[in-house]
Amino acid sequence: MPSDERSDPTQDPTIRDEILRLRGSIDNIDGALVYLLAERFKFTQRVGELKAHGGVAPADPQREQQQIERLTSIALEAGLDPAFAEKFREFIVSEVIRHHERIAAAHGSAGVLDTYS
Amino acid sequence: MPSDERSDPTQDPTIRDEILRLRGSIDNIDGALVYLLAERFKFTQRVGELKAHGGVAPADPQREQQQIERLTSIALEAGLDPAFAEKFREFIVSEVIRHHERIAAAHGSAGVLDTYS
Repeated sequence: MPSDERSDPTQDPTIRDEILRLRGSIDNIDGALVYLLAERFKFTQRVGELKAHGGVAPADPQREQQQIERLTSIALEAGLDPAFAEKFREFIVSEVIRHHERIAAAHGSAGVLDTYS
Repeated sequence: MPSDERSDPTQDPTIRDEILRLRGSIDNIDGALVYLLAERFKFTQRVGELKAHGGVAPADPQREQQQIERLTSIALEAGLDPAFAEKFREFIVSEVIRHHERIAAAHGSAGVLDTYS
């Protein structure tokens, strides 16, 4: 739930009320995004563990290409700038790589880097 | 739906099947993330327009501080690294600022930059 100690963006009650209403929706979406990201990292962590155990090649350019094309298509359908969707994917990938490096280090192996999952 | 042209991450059928299953879940989450981001930008765009029309101060440090504290709390509850949640917030903020710069330019005014919403 949004905090009751909201800042007051303006003295104009009409604009103020609409901004506060929009902020409430933004806060709800942000909560959903954080929960989904937490769930996503659970899945990529499991993929990293499986790859580390199974000696599977970490990078998979074909999989990455499929993901880029799929997310571009979804972004276009959702009205989101596809360039931003790709920046977002790369942002997440960099965090997944950081996680997989930790997993590889824990397994005493090097180079278990995946590009996205 | 995930593509049928999935790459084959390994010849071990047990590991392969589990990785493919996990990838399907990752793809579903990614779709949800992109749709939510598209919706989020609709809300921040509306906030940017209201601020540009209403002459509301663009930056709101109190609001930003509330968002940082709230997302840190949600990240901890969800098992997500709070440092990553903050990096994610900053990533989104930078895109929102880019959007608001565009809105300000369209209104012929400068400096309509908000920090998050």
